[in-house]
Amino acid sequence: MAMVCLSDFEAYAKKYLPKMAWDYFAAGADDCTTRDENILAYKRIRFRPRMLRDVSTMDIRTKILGTEISFPVGIAPTGFHQLAWPDGEKSTARAARAMNTCYIASTYSTCTLEEISAAAPSGLRWFQLYIHRNRAASQQLVQRAEALGFQALVLTVDLPYTGKRRDDVRNGFRLPPHMKVKNLERAFEVCKMSPLDPSVTWNDIYWLRSLTCLPIIIKGILTREDAELAVRHGVQGIIVSNHGGRQLDEGPATIDALVEVVEAVRGRVEVYVDGGIRKGSDVLKALALGAKCVFIGRPALWGLAYKGEEGLQDVLRILQDEFCLSMALAGCASTSEIGPHLVQFSRL
Amino acid sequence: MAMVCLSDFEAYAKKYLPKMAWDYFAAGADDCTTRDENILAYKRIRFRPRMLRDVSTMDIRTKILGTEISFPVGIAPTGFHQLAWPDGEKSTARAARAMNTCYIASTYSTCTLEEISAAAPSGLRWFQLYIHRNRAASQQLVQRAEALGFQALVLTVDLPYTGKRRDDVRNGFRLPPHMKVKNLERAFEVCKMSPLDPSVTWNDIYWLRSLTCLPIIIKGILTREDAELAVRHGVQGIIVSNHGGRQLDEGPATIDALVEVVEAVRGRVEVYVDGGIRKGSDVLKALALGAKCVFIGRPALWGLAYKGEEGLQDVLRILQDEFCLSMALAGCASTSEIGPHLVQFSRL
Amino acid sequence: MAMVCLSDFEAYAKKYLPKMAWDYFAAGADDCTTRDENILAYKRIRFRPRMLRDVSTMDIRTKILGTEISFPVGIAPTGFHQLAWPDGEKSTARAARAMNTCYIASTYSTCTLEEISAAAPSGLRWFQLYIHRNRAASQQLVQRAEALGFQALVLTVDLPYTGKRRDDVRNGFRLPPHMKVKNLERAFEVCKMSPLDPSVTWNDIYWLRSLTCLPIIIKGILTREDAELAVRHGVQGIIVSNHGGRQLDEGPATIDALVEVVEAVRGRVEVYVDGGIRKGSDVLKALALGAKCVFIGRPALWGLAYKGEEGLQDVLRILQDEFCLSMALAGCASTSEIGPHLVQFSRL
Amino acid sequence: MAMVCLSDFEAYAKKYLPKMAWDYFAAGADDCTTRDENILAYKRIRFRPRMLRDVSTMDIRTKILGTEISFPVGIAPTGFHQLAWPDGEKSTARAARAMNTCYIASTYSTCTLEEISAAAPSGLRWFQLYIHRNRAASQQLVQRAEALGFQALVLTVDLPYTGKRRDDVRNGFRLPPHMKVKNLERAFEVCKMSPLDPSVTWNDIYWLRSLTCLPIIIKGILTREDAELAVRHGVQGIIVSNHGGRQLDEGPATIDALVEVVEAVRGRVEVYVDGGIRKGSDVLKALALGAKCVFIGRPALWGLAYKGEEGLQDVLRILQDEFCLSMALAGCASTSEIGPHLVQFSRL
Repeated sequence: MAMVCLSDFEAYAKKYLPKMAWDYFAAGADDCTTRDENILAYKRIRFRPRMLRDVSTMDIRTKILGTEISFPVGIAPTGFHQLAWPDGEKSTARAARAMNTCYIASTYSTCTLEEISAAAPSGLRWFQLYIHRNRAASQQLVQRAEALGFQALVLTVDLPYTGKRRDDVRNGFRLPPHMKVKNLERAFEVCKMSPLDPSVTWNDIYWLRSLTCLPIIIKGILTREDAELAVRHGVQGIIVSNHGGRQLDEGPATIDALVEVVEAVRGRVEVYVDGGIRKGSDVLKALALGAKCVFIGRPALWGLAYKGEEGLQDVLRILQDEFCLSMALAGCASTSEIGPHLVQFSRL
Repeated sequence: MAMVCLSDFEAYAKKYLPKMAWDYFAAGADDCTTRDENILAYKRIRFRPRMLRDVSTMDIRTKILGTEISFPVGIAPTGFHQLAWPDGEKSTARAARAMNTCYIASTYSTCTLEEISAAAPSGLRWFQLYIHRNRAASQQLVQRAEALGFQALVLTVDLPYTGKRRDDVRNGFRLPPHMKVKNLERAFEVCKMSPLDPSVTWNDIYWLRSLTCLPIIIKGILTREDAELAVRHGVQGIIVSNHGGRQLDEGPATIDALVEVVEAVRGRVEVYVDGGIRKGSDVLKALALGAKCVFIGRPALWGLAYKGEEGLQDVLRILQDEFCLSMALAGCASTSEIGPHLVQFSRL
Repeated sequence: MAMVCLSDFEAYAKKYLPKMAWDYFAAGADDCTTRDENILAYKRIRFRPRMLRDVSTMDIRTKILGTEISFPVGIAPTGFHQLAWPDGEKSTARAARAMNTCYIASTYSTCTLEEISAAAPSGLRWFQLYIHRNRAASQQLVQRAEALGFQALVLTVDLPYTGKRRDDVRNGFRLPPHMKVKNLERAFEVCKMSPLDPSVTWNDIYWLRSLTCLPIIIKGILTREDAELAVRHGVQGIIVSNHGGRQLDEGPATIDALVEVVEAVRGRVEVYVDGGIRKGSDVLKALALGAKCVFIGRPALWGLAYKGEEGLQDVLRILQDEFCLSMALAGCASTSEIGPHLVQFSRL
Repeated sequence: MAMVCLSDFEAYAKKYLPKMAWDYFAAGADDCTTRDENILAYKRIRFRPRMLRDVSTMDIRTKILGTEISFPVGIAPTGFHQLAWPDGEKSTARAARAMNTCYIASTYSTCTLEEISAAAPSGLRWFQLYIHRNRAASQQLVQRAEALGFQALVLTVDLPYTGKRRDDVRNGFRLPPHMKVKNLERAFEVCKMSPLDPSVTWNDIYWLRSLTCLPIIIKGILTREDAELAVRHGVQGIIVSNHGGRQLDEGPATIDALVEVVEAVRGRVEVYVDGGIRKGSDVLKALALGAKCVFIGRPALWGLAYKGEEGLQDVLRILQDEFCLSMALAGCASTSEIGPHLVQFSRL
C-alpha cells in the first residue's frame, strides 16, 4: 500500500499496533470532542489563494527562538515512544535531525535524555517538563537537559491532574514491564500519589527561571488572559495546545484558540500550536493565523509505528511537500509572505 | 464490563430493563427533539480553561436553600423507581443520603413518602408535587411531606396534560399490577379523568404558600417572562426544566433556557437546571451559566437499574469525580470560582 | 400496528400503494431539497412555552374567510385521489366535512366537482384552479364551482410549467386507464400541448374577478414582493406554498417564506400556509408566525391510502389532538392567544 | 435506464469507465473538500421565485465576448477526452457546435487543435493554455490556435504546480500508450521537469497580449484582489474557477468566490464560473450572482463516457431544459431578467 498522506500512516498504526498502545495514543478525554474538534476546526478555515506570483523558488524555512529549521513543523512531546517502535525516542530524535527540524522530548520518554541526546547530538532538541511535587527532581531534570544540549524548556501547564480517557480506564493502561519512564526512575520510585504538583501557579515560572538559562516555553495556553500572563511572567514562547484533546474535553480547538492568543501576544513572544495538523495545508493555515511553527503529536507516532525513524521521516517529508505545494498554490514563495490575508473562516 | 461513564449505565439499563420500562424512562414527546437537544446543547458550549491555578485542594461543595451538599448534583423527581429496581425510591433515598446530596421525591413514587423518609431519615429530601383537581388531596400530600421532614416543595408546572410519548402509546404503558402510585392511592381511586388540574395559574402559588412553611421551588420554567413571574409570586427557587423533553417537544434545551432565566432572576432566588447532564463537565457548564445546582433524571434511573442504591451511588460518584476533575482542569479550586468567564457558545 | 402519528400513515402508504402512485405523491422537483426543507424548517423553530395559564378549557376553532372551522387545519388541493383510494375525492370531501374543516378540491380531481359536492353537500369546500389556454374552459369551471356551492376559488400561480420530478419521468407516470381528470374531459380532449397557460400575469386576476363573486385566494406566493402585488390586485387570501416542493427546487421552505409574507401583508388579507406540516406543533408554529390556517397535502393522501374517509379522519384527528395539546403545553387556551411570542428561530 | 439528470450520467461513467480514468476525472486535491464544496455551496443558495410573469416565450440565449450562444452553458477545458471516448475532443467539439455553445479546448487534449478545429469548423471554440518554461512553445500554440479560428485564449493561472490528487498518486496515473498529449508532442519531448512555468506573474499577461489579437480570458481567479489585478492587466474576461477542486484544497467554492469577484469587477469585463454545476437551476443561480455564462467540466466527460458526441449533447440538452424551466418557474422569461433579486443565501 502506498503511503500517500498522513491518514495512511494512521490506518497502518491502527492495524498493527497492539490495541492498548493504539488506544493510548488515540485517546481523548471524555467524549473526545476536543480531540476531534482540533481536526474539524481546520476544515472550517478557507484559503484565499492568490495567483500569478512567481513561485519558482520556494523558501519554506523558518526560525524558532533564533534557530533555523527546514520547515515549520516540529515534533510535539508525547510519551512512551517504545510503545510505537522498539528504539523509541532515539528513533524520533534521529528522524527530526535528519529532517533538520525540532524535537521536543517528553519527560515521559521511554529512553533517557542521555540516550536521546546521544542518538542525535547535533539535532535541535527541546525538553518538555512538568513541575513535580518533588521540586528537587524537577530541578535535576532541568539541569540534566541543559547540560545535554537541549535548547529550550517546554513547561506543560494543562495537566495538574490527568484527564479522563475512558479507553485507558477500560484497558487498565500501563506500560509493558520491559518499558520504563527512564528519566524519572530514581526520583519517583517510592512515590505513590501522582508525582505532578497540582499546586503550581504562575509564580513557579520564576522558580523555574532561577534554575536555568534556557528559554522557557509554556505549553497548554488557550485563552488571551493566560497568554497575557505568560508574556508578563517572562516566557520566551507559547505553545497553544489542549494536550491533543486528552485533558479538558470541550475546550476550544487549538487553531481557534491560536487566533486569540496571537492577538493578545502582539508579537512579544513566539507562538506555536499543536493538535489537529493532518495536512501540509493545515500548517499553512496555522502560520497564516500567526503561528511561527506547528508541532505534530499523533502523526509522529504513526510514522514511528510504520517504520521507526524512517517512517517518521516519511511523515515529515509528506507534510513538508504538502506544505510547500500549498504555499505555492496559495501564491506564497516564502514563509515570510504568509499572513492572515490568506485565510477566512467559513460561514459553515 | 467496567462502568466508566454514564453512558455505560445507559447501555446496561437499555439491555436489562423490560422494554416497556426502558421505553417509559427513555421517552420524549413527539419526535424527541427536545429530549435530544438537552444533550446536544451542552456540546455547543466550549470551555475557556485557565492554567496555573493552585488546584491542589478542591472544594466542590455547594449550598442549596442554605443546606450544604457534597457537590452540586441532586436527584431530579422521576416516577416509578420500582420499574428500575425492586426497592424503588427507598434505594434512591439511601443513595442520595450516602452521597450527601439532595433527592427530590416524586409524587409518582412507587413507595410512600413515609417509606422514603424512613429509608434515609437524615438525608436532604425535597418533595415534588402537582396541584390536583382534588385540592384537599394536594393539601394532604403537602402536609404529609412537611411532617416527614421534606425540606422543600417542588411544584411542577409544565404538565397541565401529559405530553405525547409515542412509544408509551404504542406499548400501552401502565404499571405492572404489583406496583402502585402509593402516595395517591386513597385520594384518587375513583377519579376517572386525569387527577391533575389544568386550570392552575400563578394565583395557586399563593394558595400553596398558605398551606406550608416550606420553601416553594417551581419546576418547568423556560422563559424570562415566567422567571420574572415566579420571583414576583414569591417562590424560593426555580428549576429550569422541560421535563426531560417529555412534555412540549421543540421547546428550548434547558441549558439554553438557563441563560435567559438566570439573567431575568438577577440573583433574587436560586436557579437550578435539569435535563441533558451526562458528564461532570456538563455540571461545570451549568454552574458557569448561573445554576446553583443541577439535577439528574434518567442517569439516576440507569444507576438504579444497574445495582439499586449502589448503582446510583456509582453514577453520582462518577459525576462527582468528573466534575471535580473538570473544575481543576478549567482552573477552579472551588465552586465559588466558577463563573461565566469559563464558557463560550460555539459558533457551530 | 397502532397509528400514533402521521409518519405511521406515511409508512403504511409507502408500503401498500403501488410504486408509481407512491412516487407520484412523494415526488419533489429535482433533488427534492425544497420538499425536505419544508419539514426541516419547522424543526429549526423553537417554542417559548409559558406556564401556569388556565388551559382547562381549550378553544381550537378558527375562522377562515368568515367561516368557522373546528381547528386550523384544512385539506390542500392535490390531484388524483383515486390513486390513493377507490372513492377518491368523494372520501376526502366526506372526511373534511366530518371533521368540520375545509377541503380545497383540485382541478385535477378524479371525481367531478358535482360528485365531490354531492358527497358532502354541507361541507366547507373551496375550488382550486389553474388558468387555461382555453379561457372558456376556465370560466366554465369557475362557474360550475360557484353554482355547486364551493365558497372560494384558489388560484394556483406556481405552475406555468410542471416541475421536473425525476421519479415521474423514470416511471413514465400516467393515470391508470380507468381514472380520468374528469373535470376537464370535455374541455381538453383535443388539446395536445399542456392545457395550462404560461402567459398568465397579474392582470388575469382582474379577469378572474370579473367571472365570479367568490373570494379569490392566490396559492404559491413565496416573497414579500408578490404578497404586496397580491393584496394590490384584490385577492382575499394568500396560501404561502411551494407546491410541496414539486415545482422550483431550492426555493424557500414555506414556513420561512410565511414570515416575510405575513410581514408584507400587514393583516390586509388572510394568509395560510401549506407544506411540511407533520405534527400538531407545526400547526401551532405556523399560527404563531401569522398563518390563519394551514393545509395538509401528502398527509391527507396517506390517510386516504390507509382507510379512505376514515383514515383521513384519523389523520385529522391526530393533528387536532396534537395541536390542542401543544397549545395547552405552550400556555394557550385559545387560538386567539397564539402569537409570535411563542416561537424563536434556533441558532442551528 | 433513463438518463434523466446529470447524476445518471455520473453513475454510468463511474460504472463503465476504467477505474484509473474515472479516478483521474473525479479526483480532487487532498481531502477533496473544495471539489465537494463546489457542489454543496450551490445548495446553500435559495431562490426567491416570482409568480405571474408571462413566461410563455422563453429566451435563454446569451452572448459571451459578443458571440451569441444558445444558452449560458459552455464546455470547460478538461484534459484527455480519449480516456472517456475514442474520438476524444473531436466529439466534444461536435457536440458543442450541435448545441450552439462554446467549447474551451484544453492544451492537454488528446487530439490536436487542427483535428478539433476540423471536427467542428463553424463552432465557437476557445483555446485554454498554460505558459510553459519554453515560451516559444507557448507562442507557437497561441498562434496555431489563432490561425485555426479559436476565438479567445483562456489562460489558466492556478497551476504553477499540479495539485496533490491522492488517487492519481496511488494509481500511478498516466495515459495509456496509445494516447498522447498531441498539441505538445514536438515541443516537450525532451523536457524532464514539468513543462509549466511556476515563475509566471501578471507581467506575463502583457507578453501574451503581445503575441495575439485574441481576447484573453484568465481562468482560476478566486479573490477580489486578483480580479482587480486581472482587469488592470487588460484581460477581456475572468473564469472564477478552482480547477474543479483539483489544485489547492480548502479554497472557496467557486459560486461563493463569484460573488466577490463580480463585486470587484463592477462590469468592466465578463465574469464566468465553473465547478459544481449539476442542475439547470445551478446555472440560474450563477447568472443571478453575476456570471455571464457557466462552464461544465466533469459532467461533459460523463456525457462523453456515455455516448460520445451524442451523450454530451444529452447532457447539454438536459441542462438547457432544466435551466429554461428554472427560469420560468422563477418568473424570468429572458436571461436579461435574471438578477440578484432571485437568490438569497440560506441561513444554514
